[in-house]
Amino acid sequence: MKQSTLFTKTQKNAPKDEITVNAQLLTRAGFVDKLMAGNYTYLPLGRRVLNKVRTVVREEMDAIGGQEIVMPTLHPSENWKTTGGWDNIDVLFKIKSRTEKDYALGQSEEEIVTPLAKKFISSYKDLPMSLYQIHWKYRDELRAKSGLLRGREFEMKDLYSFHADQADFDRYYQIAKEAYLKIYARLGLDAKVTEASGGSFTQKISYEFMVITNAGEDDILYCDGCNFCVNVEIAKETEGEACPKCHKEKLKKARASEAGNVFDLGQKYCKDFELTFTDQNGASQYPIMGCYGIGITRLVGIIVEKCHDDRGIIWPESVAPFQVHLLSLGKNEAAEKIYAELLENNIEVLYDDRDVTAGQKFADADLIGIPIRLVLSEKSLAAGGAEIKKRNEKDSRIIALEKIVGEIK
Amino acid sequence: MKQSTLFTKTQKNAPKDEITVNAQLLTRAGFVDKLMAGNYTYLPLGRRVLNKVRTVVREEMDAIGGQEIVMPTLHPSENWKTTGGWDNIDVLFKIKSRTEKDYALGQSEEEIVTPLAKKFISSYKDLPMSLYQIHWKYRDELRAKSGLLRGREFEMKDLYSFHADQADFDRYYQIAKEAYLKIYARLGLDAKVTEASGGSFTQKISYEFMVITNAGEDDILYCDGCNFCVNVEIAKETEGEACPKCHKEKLKKARASEAGNVFDLGQKYCKDFELTFTDQNGASQYPIMGCYGIGITRLVGIIVEKCHDDRGIIWPESVAPFQVHLLSLGKNEAAEKIYAELLENNIEVLYDDRDVTAGQKFADADLIGIPIRLVLSEKSLAAGGAEIKKRNEKDSRIIALEKIVGEIK
Repeated sequence: MKQSTLFTKTQKNAPKDEITVNAQLLTRAGFVDKLMAGNYTYLPLGRRVLNKVRTVVREEMDAIGGQEIVMPTLHPSENWKTTGGWDNIDVLFKIKSRTEKDYALGQSEEEIVTPLAKKFISSYKDLPMSLYQIHWKYRDELRAKSGLLRGREFEMKDLYSFHADQADFDRYYQIAKEAYLKIYARLGLDAKVTEASGGSFTQKISYEFMVITNAGEDDILYCDGCNFCVNVEIAKETEGEACPKCHKEKLKKARASEAGNVFDLGQKYCKDFELTFTDQNGASQYPIMGCYGIGITRLVGIIVEKCHDDRGIIWPESVAPFQVHLLSLGKNEAAEKIYAELLENNIEVLYDDRDVTAGQKFADADLIGIPIRLVLSEKSLAAGGAEIKKRNEKDSRIIALEKIVGEIK
Repeated sequence: MKQSTLFTKTQKNAPKDEITVNAQLLTRAGFVDKLMAGNYTYLPLGRRVLNKVRTVVREEMDAIGGQEIVMPTLHPSENWKTTGGWDNIDVLFKIKSRTEKDYALGQSEEEIVTPLAKKFISSYKDLPMSLYQIHWKYRDELRAKSGLLRGREFEMKDLYSFHADQADFDRYYQIAKEAYLKIYARLGLDAKVTEASGGSFTQKISYEFMVITNAGEDDILYCDGCNFCVNVEIAKETEGEACPKCHKEKLKKARASEAGNVFDLGQKYCKDFELTFTDQNGASQYPIMGCYGIGITRLVGIIVEKCHDDRGIIWPESVAPFQVHLLSLGKNEAAEKIYAELLENNIEVLYDDRDVTAGQKFADADLIGIPIRLVLSEKSLAAGGAEIKKRNEKDSRIIALEKIVGEIK
């Protein structure tokens, strides 16, 4: 894409009301625009990142047998009254139609997916079953904060699984946990698995995937010597104590953001909606249900919190809006040629063909944070080609024009 | 995909409350599930079709310079009060937060895109500008009906363009109109361009893209001899009259569904939000704005209304959930081999490996409506290969196994 056609422009200063790094950088670089607290428009660059994150998550959910669907956002109040959520969940947005019907805005989908699954589950042969969606959700937060980390409107992947018994649920939980860890690894994030309370969803213990960042809203205790990690909300241990698991290191405390979670919902929702199946002995049973969430928009925010420096964002390759940022300093035909060549080779490239100073182009490239920067100028051509530099490296080097595509592919 | 793993099942009978063909067939075949009147879950097959339609629309919008964004669904009431929509649009869903803030649910995005564009438009050099999104919308309909054709919750592509003057708007309108006609052609639909009133959006005349179908909600007068077509709402002519354009044929009347529209919004929204630009003479001007909508979910419904027979859906190739439906009758290794070979060649295939009768498999294949049906049985193998038949053809023929991929690609 030619940068001269991109309708967004970078901003030198962040809006004063944005206090987190992710909101500041994403706004300045033109990835998002705040409509109101907790609600952002995803601009062309931001939409590209969102799509990349969706694709990573989708691939890993498909790989564990998840079947993708799209459930409505307007939910009949009856479904929420059936589970008790209508009166108990304070972040539930409620809305009344002209015809005096009450609806909830989707903030989790157990109330919809359970009656849906009921239509297709009758026998143990129909189990296990995993359904997921990647869709927008709404929470009536008293205070939206931390940029993309806690919004009133946000995108989530939520998967729901149904199992014939606890053993099959436990088996699938391990598989889902591995899939989650693969997702974080592909996104360049180090996520710790913690135990936490299940919140209003369930009385059982849930597991959260925590990424350490000051922009987070949770506190965790963790051990550097093993994978012990617990949310302080339910921790029996305290900071500085010996790790109860490996006994080798002292527990550290850190601020973290929840990048995903899994709930063992037991039979609650299946009982609420009378979803039963006939087991191998002909007896009627309630399935065991699991719920697995990942905040797509939150992940974008977390990635920026973890991957930036003073000058801007440093996108991991897997989710970068483009792979290459091509800067042409002064008019030169070589840049046009390289741009065409990169496109021909299906390399995603943002081509800065604007009529602005070199300083502005360099500053914008650092702010936007595309992994590879290619500079074409009279100076670079005289030195033998283009200047190539990775966003996370300090020094550039010269690469011959005919070697560029091979190097990047 | 193996059909045995698909969680949905086909149904012999449509739900009694669904009276339109699109809702009946899409429900019976497992593409959608009704949550309540006007709100459907898109099941795995339905989501695939939705994605195909999105891709066609996206490609044509990108081709005319549209830049894709995602705007929030929760809109601050202030924006709607600024334009008068808060009090004048009866289908606007309104919602109040715990903190007593009033929001509207997005049903059109002029109120959001105009202040957004204002942040990036200052000079004539920033024009023209085209932004679009593919996103869900909400209308507080008194009566949701016609299956996917009129929902309370539906997906739309809406593009907004900003122009320095009327001439540039008119130029772009022609380009957008051509793009729309390309979209309908790719989807296998014949759309007529009609004049209509602009409704509550504008005092100017708008253009609608109408597809003739009894499930529609509009009446049009059209001419078979030329492209004259008008919505009866604003027609000066009557049925049977000579065409006022070509004078050759008599006007016919038909029921139709609006598959898209374009509004010349003039300067209304730019004035409401004080969006101005500096023209080439240094004077401050309001841009001319256009709005271009296409209902993604409605298109799915319209396609089914137009493309079906007594036995089920007949998907156009461009939006079919899969290109090939492979049916294996009795266990045979040949089917497994062909399935693997099709996947290797990136051909989308639904493989009916279920342990059900041949009659059930044939009936389901007709109902689901995938363009090419391939049958592998002992009989077909004895005859020299597989039986191949297009959904819209009557007779099958035998094709040698090694020729299948070449034939389909």
